[in-house]
Amino acid sequence: MIGADDVRAAARRLDGVAHRTPLVRSRTLDERTGREVVLKAENLQRVGAFKFRGAFNAVASLTDAERARGVVTVSSGNHAQALALAARLHSAPALILMPDDAPDTKVAATRGYGAEIERFDRYAEDREALLAAAVAERGMTPVHAYDDERVMAGQGTVALEVLEDVGEGAALDALVVPIGGGGLISGCATTVKALSPATRVVGVEPEVGDDVRRSLAAGERVRVPVAPTIADGQQLDRPGELTWPVIRERVDAVAVVSDTEIVETMRFLFERVKLVVEPSGACALAAVLAGRPELDDARRVGVVISGGNVGAERFAALVSRPAADADR
Amino acid sequence: MIGADDVRAAARRLDGVAHRTPLVRSRTLDERTGREVVLKAENLQRVGAFKFRGAFNAVASLTDAERARGVVTVSSGNHAQALALAARLHSAPALILMPDDAPDTKVAATRGYGAEIERFDRYAEDREALLAAAVAERGMTPVHAYDDERVMAGQGTVALEVLEDVGEGAALDALVVPIGGGGLISGCATTVKALSPATRVVGVEPEVGDDVRRSLAAGERVRVPVAPTIADGQQLDRPGELTWPVIRERVDAVAVVSDTEIVETMRFLFERVKLVVEPSGACALAAVLAGRPELDDARRVGVVISGGNVGAERFAALVSRPAADADR
Repeated sequence: MIGADDVRAAARRLDGVAHRTPLVRSRTLDERTGREVVLKAENLQRVGAFKFRGAFNAVASLTDAERARGVVTVSSGNHAQALALAARLHSAPALILMPDDAPDTKVAATRGYGAEIERFDRYAEDREALLAAAVAERGMTPVHAYDDERVMAGQGTVALEVLEDVGEGAALDALVVPIGGGGLISGCATTVKALSPATRVVGVEPEVGDDVRRSLAAGERVRVPVAPTIADGQQLDRPGELTWPVIRERVDAVAVVSDTEIVETMRFLFERVKLVVEPSGACALAAVLAGRPELDDARRVGVVISGGNVGAERFAALVSRPAADADR
Repeated sequence: MIGADDVRAAARRLDGVAHRTPLVRSRTLDERTGREVVLKAENLQRVGAFKFRGAFNAVASLTDAERARGVVTVSSGNHAQALALAARLHSAPALILMPDDAPDTKVAATRGYGAEIERFDRYAEDREALLAAAVAERGMTPVHAYDDERVMAGQGTVALEVLEDVGEGAALDALVVPIGGGGLISGCATTVKALSPATRVVGVEPEVGDDVRRSLAAGERVRVPVAPTIADGQQLDRPGELTWPVIRERVDAVAVVSDTEIVETMRFLFERVKLVVEPSGACALAAVLAGRPELDDARRVGVVISGGNVGAERFAALVSRPAADADR
């Protein structure tokens, strides 16, 4: 299982490469929640999301020979762009397997970072077989979006920066982190439990895809039906194989939020904080604004704003209309 | 004329009250401009704009007796909200004179900070007479949006933080600042010329309202016709009486940008930097993205992103459509 030393090693690799994203404060937010809230603005990270950290750490951890053969992954989301950029920065080839129905903008952005794209039919083709073929035929190293210890350790640097920047005299009572596959929260929980054990780690999932909450209740990984949610970055059916044991041991609680709460939070971040945040990126703050009981009486709360990649039309539609009308 | 000591005194008053807004970096921006650009994100300031600094410094500079009688101003923009909040934080009354055609959202926001609002007909009534009445009858202290040395000194703390946060080892070649009435740039230029005299101070105006550029060319304050521009915060017809001598002495150059360039910059900030920025707030960066000659060969450039107060519908319309189609 990864430890704080893996996160520290990742931080050294990322130094001068990733942005040290700011902690953003809002008095309105403090007044509305009755807490002191610091937002870790990973939407301001390279490629617009925390994913750059894990992907870069993974590529940087390869041997020269491995790097020369390149990396491969299956992703239509932020990890695709993150791995493409991480590979380019190491002059390594990258093959990104993207489903046919991935948005053109995401495909173009990923190609823009110099990656080779291979499309596949997500209903007719087996993504694992495509991945295995790239590994067998081209000697590429697979870099999973979350179920990879190098990726998890890289994402843990988010929490490391939060703890360093709030300072020792102002320890957080809780750090609130969105959960997709669990790469971000497993890395962050590892950091927090090692360096600030009194700080609670609270994960947040969309209520229709609460696989981690149910898994914690059951004591084992359970699979939930994949239901549509506006938070497409969190639309996963069960915890990762490697992220799960870390989450079970180091995460204190998991809260859930509705799509309507997520949209209201995106509008709040637009109107009052002036940040562009994608649905998954607003999920953790949505739980804080809604005052979920899993936060307990935490007074000083860190919240990870995990990404800001949302198209102009979609963002405009979401922040312009009353949140109560929001659908997918 | 204000000096660096006035700015430092303002910084002490603002310590712990204003946000120390972050410097935001974007690799895409650096690559596109061929420079190292740091963005001072004053859209993340309280009330969503740098105006809070000057207004707070002005109210904090009053005697107890003056504060008890309160402050008055004419504004339908960010200064209205800034002064309302600054007064509330000092438990001082605030009267804000707003034209009848000021947007309801701005009126509501200003009232939300506890200010008394008085509407007037901007064509039939004399705003100076209304202001004079509040001073004569109620003993209120007028706090002009820019033509006030306490306000100018407060705005100068923006540059103070930029210089401190980039560090002495990485001095800026230029600081680029939007110009409206000149409060922000006169304060910032005062700071820069005292603390980092080799740093050029470059102002930016909308091309249809280039009163400061023309005044510098003429060597005296000139009045230009008020033409419509998307950058409504900069729609002024001539430099302020107090800001002008500071600008003439301490600002190195003034560039102009078109409304289309401003909209393209808002979209860039949305898509690539994930910040919500209002038209006036994007003006300085627009000059950098357009590579205006006034920047000279400045390699390390600080840019003030001055505010983010733009309604959802307007923002959506501007960032969604092709910038070339943008009109007012």
